Amino acid sequence: MSSHIERAKILVEALPYIQKYYNKTVVIKYGGNAMINEELKQAVINDIVLLSLVGVKVVVVHGGGPEITAMFERVGKESKFVNGLRYTDDDSMDLVQMVLAGKLNKEIVSIINKAGGRAIGLCGIDGGLFKAEKLTEDGFDYGRVGEITEVDTSVVNDALSCGFIPVISTVAQGEDGSYNINADTAAAKLASALKAEKVMLLTDIAGLMMDPNDPATLIRDINVSEIPRLQRDGVISGGMIPKIDCCVEAVRQGVKQANILDGRVPHSILMEMLSDEGIGTMIYGERCV
Amino acid sequence: MSSHIERAKILVEALPYIQKYYNKTVVIKYGGNAMINEELKQAVINDIVLLSLVGVKVVVVHGGGPEITAMFERVGKESKFVNGLRYTDDDSMDLVQMVLAGKLNKEIVSIINKAGGRAIGLCGIDGGLFKAEKLTEDGFDYGRVGEITEVDTSVVNDALSCGFIPVISTVAQGEDGSYNINADTAAAKLASALKAEKVMLLTDIAGLMMDPNDPATLIRDINVSEIPRLQRDGVISGGMIPKIDCCVEAVRQGVKQANILDGRVPHSILMEMLSDEGIGTMIYGERCV
Amino acid sequence: MSSHIERAKILVEALPYIQKYYNKTVVIKYGGNAMINEELKQAVINDIVLLSLVGVKVVVVHGGGPEITAMFERVGKESKFVNGLRYTDDDSMDLVQMVLAGKLNKEIVSIINKAGGRAIGLCGIDGGLFKAEKLTEDGFDYGRVGEITEVDTSVVNDALSCGFIPVISTVAQGEDGSYNINADTAAAKLASALKAEKVMLLTDIAGLMMDPNDPATLIRDINVSEIPRLQRDGVISGGMIPKIDCCVEAVRQGVKQANILDGRVPHSILMEMLSDEGIGTMIYGERCV
Amino acid sequence: MSSHIERAKILVEALPYIQKYYNKTVVIKYGGNAMINEELKQAVINDIVLLSLVGVKVVVVHGGGPEITAMFERVGKESKFVNGLRYTDDDSMDLVQMVLAGKLNKEIVSIINKAGGRAIGLCGIDGGLFKAEKLTEDGFDYGRVGEITEVDTSVVNDALSCGFIPVISTVAQGEDGSYNINADTAAAKLASALKAEKVMLLTDIAGLMMDPNDPATLIRDINVSEIPRLQRDGVISGGMIPKIDCCVEAVRQGVKQANILDGRVPHSILMEMLSDEGIGTMIYGERCV
Amino acid sequence: MSSHIERAKILVEALPYIQKYYNKTVVIKYGGNAMINEELKQAVINDIVLLSLVGVKVVVVHGGGPEITAMFERVGKESKFVNGLRYTDDDSMDLVQMVLAGKLNKEIVSIINKAGGRAIGLCGIDGGLFKAEKLTEDGFDYGRVGEITEVDTSVVNDALSCGFIPVISTVAQGEDGSYNINADTAAAKLASALKAEKVMLLTDIAGLMMDPNDPATLIRDINVSEIPRLQRDGVISGGMIPKIDCCVEAVRQGVKQANILDGRVPHSILMEMLSDEGIGTMIYGERCV
Amino acid sequence: MSSHIERAKILVEALPYIQKYYNKTVVIKYGGNAMINEELKQAVINDIVLLSLVGVKVVVVHGGGPEITAMFERVGKESKFVNGLRYTDDDSMDLVQMVLAGKLNKEIVSIINKAGGRAIGLCGIDGGLFKAEKLTEDGFDYGRVGEITEVDTSVVNDALSCGFIPVISTVAQGEDGSYNINADTAAAKLASALKAEKVMLLTDIAGLMMDPNDPATLIRDINVSEIPRLQRDGVISGGMIPKIDCCVEAVRQGVKQANILDGRVPHSILMEMLSDEGIGTMIYGERCV
Repeated sequence: MSSHIERAKILVEALPYIQKYYNKTVVIKYGGNAMINEELKQAVINDIVLLSLVGVKVVVVHGGGPEITAMFERVGKESKFVNGLRYTDDDSMDLVQMVLAGKLNKEIVSIINKAGGRAIGLCGIDGGLFKAEKLTEDGFDYGRVGEITEVDTSVVNDALSCGFIPVISTVAQGEDGSYNINADTAAAKLASALKAEKVMLLTDIAGLMMDPNDPATLIRDINVSEIPRLQRDGVISGGMIPKIDCCVEAVRQGVKQANILDGRVPHSILMEMLSDEGIGTMIYGERCV
Repeated sequence: MSSHIERAKILVEALPYIQKYYNKTVVIKYGGNAMINEELKQAVINDIVLLSLVGVKVVVVHGGGPEITAMFERVGKESKFVNGLRYTDDDSMDLVQMVLAGKLNKEIVSIINKAGGRAIGLCGIDGGLFKAEKLTEDGFDYGRVGEITEVDTSVVNDALSCGFIPVISTVAQGEDGSYNINADTAAAKLASALKAEKVMLLTDIAGLMMDPNDPATLIRDINVSEIPRLQRDGVISGGMIPKIDCCVEAVRQGVKQANILDGRVPHSILMEMLSDEGIGTMIYGERCV
Repeated sequence: MSSHIERAKILVEALPYIQKYYNKTVVIKYGGNAMINEELKQAVINDIVLLSLVGVKVVVVHGGGPEITAMFERVGKESKFVNGLRYTDDDSMDLVQMVLAGKLNKEIVSIINKAGGRAIGLCGIDGGLFKAEKLTEDGFDYGRVGEITEVDTSVVNDALSCGFIPVISTVAQGEDGSYNINADTAAAKLASALKAEKVMLLTDIAGLMMDPNDPATLIRDINVSEIPRLQRDGVISGGMIPKIDCCVEAVRQGVKQANILDGRVPHSILMEMLSDEGIGTMIYGERCV
Repeated sequence: MSSHIERAKILVEALPYIQKYYNKTVVIKYGGNAMINEELKQAVINDIVLLSLVGVKVVVVHGGGPEITAMFERVGKESKFVNGLRYTDDDSMDLVQMVLAGKLNKEIVSIINKAGGRAIGLCGIDGGLFKAEKLTEDGFDYGRVGEITEVDTSVVNDALSCGFIPVISTVAQGEDGSYNINADTAAAKLASALKAEKVMLLTDIAGLMMDPNDPATLIRDINVSEIPRLQRDGVISGGMIPKIDCCVEAVRQGVKQANILDGRVPHSILMEMLSDEGIGTMIYGERCV
Repeated sequence: MSSHIERAKILVEALPYIQKYYNKTVVIKYGGNAMINEELKQAVINDIVLLSLVGVKVVVVHGGGPEITAMFERVGKESKFVNGLRYTDDDSMDLVQMVLAGKLNKEIVSIINKAGGRAIGLCGIDGGLFKAEKLTEDGFDYGRVGEITEVDTSVVNDALSCGFIPVISTVAQGEDGSYNINADTAAAKLASALKAEKVMLLTDIAGLMMDPNDPATLIRDINVSEIPRLQRDGVISGGMIPKIDCCVEAVRQGVKQANILDGRVPHSILMEMLSDEGIGTMIYGERCV
Repeated sequence: MSSHIERAKILVEALPYIQKYYNKTVVIKYGGNAMINEELKQAVINDIVLLSLVGVKVVVVHGGGPEITAMFERVGKESKFVNGLRYTDDDSMDLVQMVLAGKLNKEIVSIINKAGGRAIGLCGIDGGLFKAEKLTEDGFDYGRVGEITEVDTSVVNDALSCGFIPVISTVAQGEDGSYNINADTAAAKLASALKAEKVMLLTDIAGLMMDPNDPATLIRDINVSEIPRLQRDGVISGGMIPKIDCCVEAVRQGVKQANILDGRVPHSILMEMLSDEGIGTMIYGERCV
């Protein structure tokens, strides 16, 4: 009996956090280990369905690195990376899109539905969600890697108001065909366009640390205005650079909070949203905590 | 960290139960110790607010025995009981109504609001909710104790659809003034009229037991069709008789489940609604489990 | 037959006034003799129901002086006044709230409903309508007499849009319990928050008079900007001071008209609203007649 | 002052009648002296606007005898009557339609609007309201006099729900052009199709009398089942025959009451609707009073 | 078969034009030959019904010159023109209104309904659409010819949102009776008040030509800012002056395009709206093509 | 000019057909040559966008034979057919789903959007649209080829009411993973569940012919009750058998018409819908033409 009471207490303690996010939009970039490990995957899906049920408008944006690599191997195509981004020729784009929008997207939808949620799988082409053009950065040529030039949120808002959890593959519509979009960037752009309360990037690290080798130096929350200093000091480096850039961009565009979450910890989404301590690193706007 | 994960798991385990009651109406008869003990009171209120937040349409019906007695004492009026019911003369009715609708009702509303809910306090007079006439049972005269002759649920439905938790004092409108209504009866009648999913009576006992002295003989659930046999066998006796009658009446009028809950156990409402085992005794309709 | 035609003519003559207030919000502070005398009471209620029926959004705010005094006497508590306001200790507050929200409020609701209206009784605690803190004026201590710090009109607007006449007891929610609010002040504050067309204070005087002993000197209407001069000249004195202050406050906050009505005259509300001459004293804004 | 109170009382006494017709549809056939005499005309219009304002859904159907005759004279066309109905050749139909839909209809709309109502003028052609075919009765040929074969109430319902008072000319759409419809018949048919509460025919007589020469023999109300006997006995004769037939038809099709009103008495509409005694003759259904 | 494919191609080619006007408001001034010739009439009506069906909000404003003249002749009244406008005395106004609102208006409604549209016939009196006063221009007296002083579009918007095609006679409400309004002016004013996308005047000329005798000099489109120069140069002369003035006024008030169409060419409305070349002369705003 | 008038006339002639299908649901099974040939593809898409624009609720269901075969070849997997259906092992299912839901589906969406429509790409997994289980027919084992056991149309209806054209890949959700569904069957089942007006199967034949070698023997329309006789007589044979079965099933379930269309003819969809003659073979219900 006492364990039952304990469980009820825990539910009740979640109350203020549920109230805080009631009817707010939260964009979750789903990727990394949490998309591969079966147990972690199930925990993420359950978190998403629970949030949806208690009134949070959850939008899922997913990438698909390992599955794409596997598909490339299967058809005997070499994965080629330029400046850290997968070079995508026309034929590769086809494969990328099929894996993202045809396989992973529908798999996530399927698991959410089985867990009692109501999901719908979309990509940036549906309803004209993401328009893109060729990414031209620093003089590199990434093939059909694109950058988003326009976000039309109506299909996502319609899905939300019809009670669905939109699950979105990061393929965008270009003038001359599809473009492959970095999922962190797409999540940040979409969160901005939706005027979301929060965007959360599920990663395979504990968060931003002053000393990457010492978990004790984890930065729990930081005002977006302090990021440039950390960039100058080299605290933000390697794979963290683009992720933090996405967070900064989202917060600057009006998203209240951007989080780097550790996707290797089960239920990290709920822990971040339904407790005071949170988890990972939160970047917040200049005028709010 | 692990305790956080544990808490998240507990939240996730509540998912199917939350889904089960989503957008369903549940009537809670609030009374007994749970209305006196401060800690129990807070637990009940938190349960109510949480249920409301996860999409359950909660309606609270309350009585007020001890507070009424205290008020009688204060004005030097003797409490007189006829056949187990408080005899209520015209002057007493005034006092009863003031305590119920003026004090306890607003106190419950106030605590719910402080806990983050949105409550509104009503009585059977508001919006013509309960019409009543003098109770004439077995030839006894109970004064202004009434029985409900008509329920107009529009004020309750309007309050629910505006997002409020209606908290209802069991005073009804008669042709010739107010009537005092038994709260269990009122809760059952209202649940029937609202076509509620569930009505729960918070009591000061563990539930219906084959042997009232042996908690191990608790009847966890029972089909309404088996109640008459238990009545004949004397298993249902004393104060249990009217409570079980209310449950039977509600279930026969279409409420799916009626529960006798132990209000002395904190969070008994959540435990009943958000777990498989439930708590106390559940009476269910003939065609469903 | 001719008397019938006469009656029809009178109805038709009310047309332009009905049109003027169609779908407008009017707050009526109900109190004084009109709340004690049975005939006057019935006339007020009939006026309210009629206005509601012809499309006016009527909100009733009531006080309860004499009934509170009677209750105090009954429990052997002395009524103590400080600077003209009833000193309210914690225990008194309980009694005040019970009489207002439990007795008078429901009685008004009951009579309106019997007259064919659809009323709902609320107090400042319901739906968080009035937040208050301890009144600290001129260094006096009035106990639990409060001043309103916040008005959340949603519960009143919801009630109006569901077709109810909200009847409101002037008890407010404080951080540390209920507070007793002056009914004239509450009516004025509520009218301001509702952006009402008109607030009417039912009193036991004919209106504001240049010479209080000479009814012929009644001021029929006056621009709010001329009030300060009358205050300086001592024309406004005694019990008139706080009432005029309420009117001025309401008009300054955007209510178009504030009226001091003579509640001792039957149907003074209808007479004010449905005729050219009006009755009592009207205070209007600087830019309108 | 006392006359003011008297007026307020009269308004209040109208309350129960206003409540009775609230949101109900009432069809008024407007014609006869009440359409010619300026004072009567203004009284009718005021009655209509008042009823509309207090929540009655008023629909006006009008004829136009004298004006049509005047127009015929003007163009040198002889009015020819067959079996009591105006024979209407193709050219006459044009004139009839112009007078009804172009002159009288817009005049009524104009006066209602000036009196503060919101009227819209329609005829049976608009929105396909009335479909008709040539009237073939008793072997007579009436030219383009038609009988209604189909009523599509959508244009009237749309106008009512947009808050307009529909004013309807009794011209209908035939396969081969317009048809002239008897206004009493059209009002009765429309009332039936609208499932109206009441249809009222404004006439130039006091009502149905046992002895047409003795006003004291006026039949105030009569069950529709008793009409056939009166027809057999010759009590219903002359111009009364078709009017009573319309009333009977409407009541048999579900309209609760049909009234023969004396349009020569100012405010006869209000007198019928807002008093107990009523005026003229009321024919009611078999199962209601 | 190939002719079928051809027809399908033509339908498909209309796509972008249909999309362009989807849900936009277009006001058509219907008059001239297109209102007299049976074949042209049917073509105009079909164009209107088709546009309505593919999602254009069509509003028809009509005049009625020849029919009015015929009516005048019939009653032996001489048509008198002042400064190019029909002088309208009180009696004439009656005739004008009857022909416009009673005959032509209902005839257009009837034909639209037969062609499968849903039309409703209104004039400026209905719902207070057009308020007017006596036209006083250049010291001439035109009798009851009026100029519009106020447009209340609610009756037109209500009709459009209920799915009707409003057909409007240009009679307006004055303080002292009806006024006759020039139909081109009324169409332009209404288009402005409705914030229409386009107003189209059906005329009996090919459009504005540099040399009125040489169709090859037709001006296909012209920026409103260039009109004054053409006026000074005398290119705009005679009957063209008021028509162009209407167009200029409409465009200056926010209507995107105003067109002078040749109503003698069947389907000129569709040709203008559903092809690139258009037909006649288009006057457009300073900031758009 | 005359060619312009001709075009306008053709548009107008389409009117009655557009009216016939206004707001009706039409399911189009898109496949065969019309999905390969670029010109035919564009014609189909234009037809779809036009129908959508003129108020038809178009739902597109597509298959993908040749692209799937190409993908199989690319990964070196042999296409294996059992009883005319592609045998689909677990790995093949992945490929099939990727090609259908990830490539072809998004390509169709993209082309519709470019043509000015608003499409959204879904598969049977999204929103739980199609539930399926393993097809077990005649003792054959087809691997993951499934048959639909349940259709939940809410996601399609939501998309339609938000103004989108749903484009659906025929992948369904099974208990143990995805299933491949025959596209003709899926279209027929969906049309039945949507209570569609019409289902059209785009094929590579002219329709059902009495003599397959003689186009002159084409059956233009046939009552569903006559199909069994043709089946017995062997007129329906080969690939026609399952297609006709789908049509029969749809019509028996309440779809008014099922069409076998020749997808090799450009604009066959428009020709069928917007002309009297139609194209291909139409199977209609027993009680309608």
